[in-house]
Amino acid sequence: MEQALLSNTLCDALAGAETAALRDILDEAHPADLARCLAEQEPAAVWKILSLLPAERRAEVFGYFAADLQVDLARLLSRTQLAQIMFHMSADERADLFNRLSPEQRDALLPGLAQAERDDLLRLSAYPEGTAGAVMTSDYATLPHKLTTREAIEVLRREAPDKETIYQSYVIDSERRLLGTVSLRDLILAPPKTRVEDILVHDVIYARAEDSQAEVAAKIARYDLLALPIVNGGDKLVGIVTYDDALDVVEAEATEDFHKGATVGKLDGSVREAALSLLYRKRVFWLVLLVFGNLFSGAGIAYFADTITANVGLVFFLPLLVGSAGNAGSQASTLMVRALATGDVMLKDWGRMLGRELVVAAALGLTMALAVSGVGVMRGGAELAQVVALAMLFAVMTGGLIGVSLPFMLSRFKLDPATASAPLVTTIADVTGVMIYFSIASIYLPLH
Amino acid sequence: MEQALLSNTLCDALAGAETAALRDILDEAHPADLARCLAEQEPAAVWKILSLLPAERRAEVFGYFAADLQVDLARLLSRTQLAQIMFHMSADERADLFNRLSPEQRDALLPGLAQAERDDLLRLSAYPEGTAGAVMTSDYATLPHKLTTREAIEVLRREAPDKETIYQSYVIDSERRLLGTVSLRDLILAPPKTRVEDILVHDVIYARAEDSQAEVAAKIARYDLLALPIVNGGDKLVGIVTYDDALDVVEAEATEDFHKGATVGKLDGSVREAALSLLYRKRVFWLVLLVFGNLFSGAGIAYFADTITANVGLVFFLPLLVGSAGNAGSQASTLMVRALATGDVMLKDWGRMLGRELVVAAALGLTMALAVSGVGVMRGGAELAQVVALAMLFAVMTGGLIGVSLPFMLSRFKLDPATASAPLVTTIADVTGVMIYFSIASIYLPLH
Repeated sequence: MEQALLSNTLCDALAGAETAALRDILDEAHPADLARCLAEQEPAAVWKILSLLPAERRAEVFGYFAADLQVDLARLLSRTQLAQIMFHMSADERADLFNRLSPEQRDALLPGLAQAERDDLLRLSAYPEGTAGAVMTSDYATLPHKLTTREAIEVLRREAPDKETIYQSYVIDSERRLLGTVSLRDLILAPPKTRVEDILVHDVIYARAEDSQAEVAAKIARYDLLALPIVNGGDKLVGIVTYDDALDVVEAEATEDFHKGATVGKLDGSVREAALSLLYRKRVFWLVLLVFGNLFSGAGIAYFADTITANVGLVFFLPLLVGSAGNAGSQASTLMVRALATGDVMLKDWGRMLGRELVVAAALGLTMALAVSGVGVMRGGAELAQVVALAMLFAVMTGGLIGVSLPFMLSRFKLDPATASAPLVTTIADVTGVMIYFSIASIYLPLH
Repeated sequence: MEQALLSNTLCDALAGAETAALRDILDEAHPADLARCLAEQEPAAVWKILSLLPAERRAEVFGYFAADLQVDLARLLSRTQLAQIMFHMSADERADLFNRLSPEQRDALLPGLAQAERDDLLRLSAYPEGTAGAVMTSDYATLPHKLTTREAIEVLRREAPDKETIYQSYVIDSERRLLGTVSLRDLILAPPKTRVEDILVHDVIYARAEDSQAEVAAKIARYDLLALPIVNGGDKLVGIVTYDDALDVVEAEATEDFHKGATVGKLDGSVREAALSLLYRKRVFWLVLLVFGNLFSGAGIAYFADTITANVGLVFFLPLLVGSAGNAGSQASTLMVRALATGDVMLKDWGRMLGRELVVAAALGLTMALAVSGVGVMRGGAELAQVVALAMLFAVMTGGLIGVSLPFMLSRFKLDPATASAPLVTTIADVTGVMIYFSIASIYLPLH
């Protein structure tokens, strides 16, 4: 028994190896590890090493590369080299890569593929990015329902080398409509002469090709599936999505939402390797947009210039008040964004969630008001303390309610709730915080 | 072919059904859907419906409940009822529930279980929360290596009903040390008289019982595994973690990090159903803690009170400057936190990431400086515009560098990088933003 080599050790070995030792490493390392090490090198160097591998293993390692590197490599390769790699890739990986090639590369590539691959490729690559269709594979096993379980296992044995999974098979009628599914486990468990139709599961959980990948992944996770069948508008089976793709989708979706939570745009692939100009572009948009929100805060302050000049001590508490409102707001929005994403909360729960937040934010606001009133007394006397405590209570409550409402509002208008990021909520809560604070101050405090 | 009922429709049907119709629904619905609908009701009502189900199905639905509801229900049940449910649960779910019971409940329960279950339960429940050991199951299939593939399939057929997966089997020696793995796919593909030892995969990817669940899930995702074997300190096989548990872990980890990104504490289970007092407790700690950070900002402002009184127009740009520094900082920290969590970036990349951020943040800062200098001229003339633009450049750059450094610093001291939440980074960036702004202002602008 031997633990898979830690990537770093493997990468160092790979970088320093002589030809003979290199071959050993290439033969023995897990393709995922090889891909990770190679990804740190220049495309030309990567290809030099890839070309040492047998064709099938080369395609496997290639399949583990990030999309960007695959495209960069594809540019270096001749039509034949690329067609050979694509021939050995799984149907879904192949379609993914094809979608990312330039129109010229696609046109050059197609004649090099066999008819069956070409048709399959064009069919799979027709689905828009982010849909179930774009991530599904056509390498699934189908079974006629009249077979006995022994015959069915025989069919699967013959077909296994070309299928992504044989643990779940699909029984379809002559129109490719899905009649049911049968697991290899049930085939093996049943007496050899049982008919497949007798152990068929009829209430199949499935998704449509135009459904989002997030929904598909959620179904796979919720029902603990190995693979989810995908049907088209005519209810015909067109592919399956396997659990390992669902894992990738869940991770990618979580990363995307996480980034959006700080107004960073969608970023495919590695942050470590991303071009600096790309990182700039993914961050600048919201940063500049939020300037306008903050200018509103500034305008609010300008409006109360007299109150401030008369009581310059007020400014001392300004960061505290707007900061706390923003923090309470981003807590609330984050809870809602994630709950909406995982399906824990739905649009119809809006009212109920607002009611709950009212109670929680009031309790938080009271705690915060107590916490700051002491400081208020010390720095400005009882009157200022009263203003600060009261403003704190209202600012935190308003922040919380904004934080809860924004994700629901976005969701209501079919926008991504994750846009209700911490910076956006903070900026909005800031404006209201400024207004609440100085409004209360101008009521309580003398102007001279 | 019939789509799984949408939860809402199912839940409504369940709530309104007469006894006969209710039985139909209970017989046909997917256990995951039933669990979701039932979770909305009171524990006593849940148990009333659960008790209508056959024992095995009852345990299956029970296994889909959130941990809190399982514990609430366990309190309602007699020792025998609970033991019966636990008998039918999978080994890992059983151990999870056992860990959450009170010491009295545990003591009452153990005598009701068979010896084998009892031993297994005590062994599995000995691992601390969050480790691979706490999520693994002992329901895996082992094979002697001398068998032929035909015999091996026969063994699996007999054992299948009790095993969580038979798609991956483990070959161990007399000391339970792992010799290799064999997939059912390879067993089926090989000619019937092949020996298992000839198709064994020897370079097994495994994890240790004390490894974190996040590491385990990452391995399963990276190597596209159906199940990952878990060994103890003596290299003996003690369990496996299956892909569906990995999916749950990835989702739970992402949720936890996402919540931490807005300083919300770790929250098991539904936000929708969580007690209000729990939500309060999960939010109040950081909210109050950050008060002190904001008081520093306030102190900074107080220090520059003369500058402000002389140029009250400066306050107009205060929210903008500190807001932008905070936003740039939370973007940078969010990118790093997620990259560290997914393994895209490691501790050794700190220097490189800082260098990259320096470039990106400088570009962002320049853009922002240009964007605000126009407003600066309009509201306060060329001199103020110069101050604001210069302060913006430095504030955004400082914010970005703080955002990159904080997750690495936390990681360096073995703390969770996700603690570098947007509110924390924003608060720290606020303080430095205030200092930078007024320092520059007091150099450039006259005090009278």
